[in-house]
Amino acid sequence: MYKVLITTIPFGDKSHLPLDLLKNNNIEYLINPLNKKLTEEELIEMIADFNVIIAGTEPITKKVMDNAKNLKMISRVGIGLDNVDLLEAEKQGITVSYTPDAPAPAVAELTIGLMLTLLRSVQVSNMEMHIGKWHRFFGRRLSEITIGIIGVGRIGSGVLQHLKSFGSPKILVNDIVPDYNLDKIFNINWVDKKTIYEQADVITIHTPLTVQTKDMIREEHLLKMKSDAIIINTARGGIINEKDLYEVMQSGHLSGAAIDVFDLEPYNGKLKDIQRCILTAHMGSMSVDCRTRMEVEATEEVVRFITNQRLENSVPEEEYAVQREGL
Amino acid sequence: MYKVLITTIPFGDKSHLPLDLLKNNNIEYLINPLNKKLTEEELIEMIADFNVIIAGTEPITKKVMDNAKNLKMISRVGIGLDNVDLLEAEKQGITVSYTPDAPAPAVAELTIGLMLTLLRSVQVSNMEMHIGKWHRFFGRRLSEITIGIIGVGRIGSGVLQHLKSFGSPKILVNDIVPDYNLDKIFNINWVDKKTIYEQADVITIHTPLTVQTKDMIREEHLLKMKSDAIIINTARGGIINEKDLYEVMQSGHLSGAAIDVFDLEPYNGKLKDIQRCILTAHMGSMSVDCRTRMEVEATEEVVRFITNQRLENSVPEEEYAVQREGL
Repeated sequence: MYKVLITTIPFGDKSHLPLDLLKNNNIEYLINPLNKKLTEEELIEMIADFNVIIAGTEPITKKVMDNAKNLKMISRVGIGLDNVDLLEAEKQGITVSYTPDAPAPAVAELTIGLMLTLLRSVQVSNMEMHIGKWHRFFGRRLSEITIGIIGVGRIGSGVLQHLKSFGSPKILVNDIVPDYNLDKIFNINWVDKKTIYEQADVITIHTPLTVQTKDMIREEHLLKMKSDAIIINTARGGIINEKDLYEVMQSGHLSGAAIDVFDLEPYNGKLKDIQRCILTAHMGSMSVDCRTRMEVEATEEVVRFITNQRLENSVPEEEYAVQREGL
Repeated sequence: MYKVLITTIPFGDKSHLPLDLLKNNNIEYLINPLNKKLTEEELIEMIADFNVIIAGTEPITKKVMDNAKNLKMISRVGIGLDNVDLLEAEKQGITVSYTPDAPAPAVAELTIGLMLTLLRSVQVSNMEMHIGKWHRFFGRRLSEITIGIIGVGRIGSGVLQHLKSFGSPKILVNDIVPDYNLDKIFNINWVDKKTIYEQADVITIHTPLTVQTKDMIREEHLLKMKSDAIIINTARGGIINEKDLYEVMQSGHLSGAAIDVFDLEPYNGKLKDIQRCILTAHMGSMSVDCRTRMEVEATEEVVRFITNQRLENSVPEEEYAVQREGL
């Protein structure tokens, strides 16, 4: 009998569907008893007996797999694979699936909300008003500014789609593998990252975390940005160097930032001191509909695996290539 | 020589155009020396010598006009006329102009930002994260919910326009004078206000403040709303009864609110205690482009008046009818 460890938190909270799927297939499961993102050590302590992980963003490293002698499958609830050592999984014969489409609509929509909030200083006015301070902040509208999008895959193109109904913002885009089909749908300009850093008023990141994007935006890049630029990271912690962002903003550079993802989660670091930096608790995919779809898709894949059906969302070769070649 | 009192604050802050217009036409002016929204008494104290007011939302009542023996024109920077006693102005032969189109794009865009922020509990997570508390809030996407818009004039239809690129939200609309032409552009349902209160997940107000909309939404209406509904007021203070909103939210009803306009501004009232209520400092029209356009249009109208040219933005008869008949 297969035993499933559900590490991602929350799970089955807003919809009973994923847990019902497991129960109806007589699959034994345990939901992460620590109720927080697990460290490598915590996962090692927990994993020995289990055959399957329904996984969040906790580190599933060689060391974890070496201590998980019964592990046969990892089913990621989400799109990012930066936390899974795919090459080691391949070596140990562990199947990996994911849910690449499900989170995108929720992340794209949150990103637009953060953009509009930052452009109008809503978060600063809100904090001030709650302590009785009245100041009417000037803001900017999307149609008046230049927007830079780094990474225009599923989420980045969702952001493009939403921007369509806000007049005609000037949009600069960059991707390691440009999809020029997007030019037929959106009015965009493909540029290098340096151009985005120098010209954009709002910069939003929608790349995966890879060897190439780890620490992609450091002090030198932040300082290239306009002094009143805004930067948003709803992708992965570590793509923008947190320490550098703190220091650059502390010095007065940049008019705002919104950070939803962190090197270490739960986050409790120095960006807390920057009022014009919106901080949220990795909530990009946390709309009820997208989260449910992610949980259901990941669980369905587990059921397929256990009942020897053909998998529908195996991680494709490109993702292994990213880790193999640092592409 | 004409003397102009500029009561609205800020003015000429982000663009020199409006002040240049006055200077180039040798028009003497004074910018509100108290640098805040004036009370009736403060305005009376100040107004005696002036021929023109470039006005904000301060009360321009019969009593003010009785003490403003030289007043010939009021040029409102904005669309709302609730603060101007139009009938008394008419009686005293005081011309009134306004800028009805200029603020709409900025107010509509802020409203969408507030909607997305509230739907994802960004303001609550942001406040918690800034004190080191990590909780991943569930949210909802626009395409999953029912949106209610009360008042679909210039601003309300701007909100409709922006909603177009967010999937297919179910949209309920209400207006005292329904414009059925909107049905050709948007997928909307005309309903009574009660239906909006009962069925909408997000309710946003875009009516003027009139005898009919004053205190339009009181405890009884708030309690009709879904327990997790969200309400947004970027229109005018007093349309939602502030005291009732405080009490209803304090009791746990409604999942969020965003209030940009207040009975008494600057606001320093009890809603400060409600963390899930976003408070902003009457910033709806405060995008640099819209605010500049409002100031320039209002000033151009003053120049036209003083130089005996035809006015372009005189307040139309309908607005007088609203105050005359409470329409």
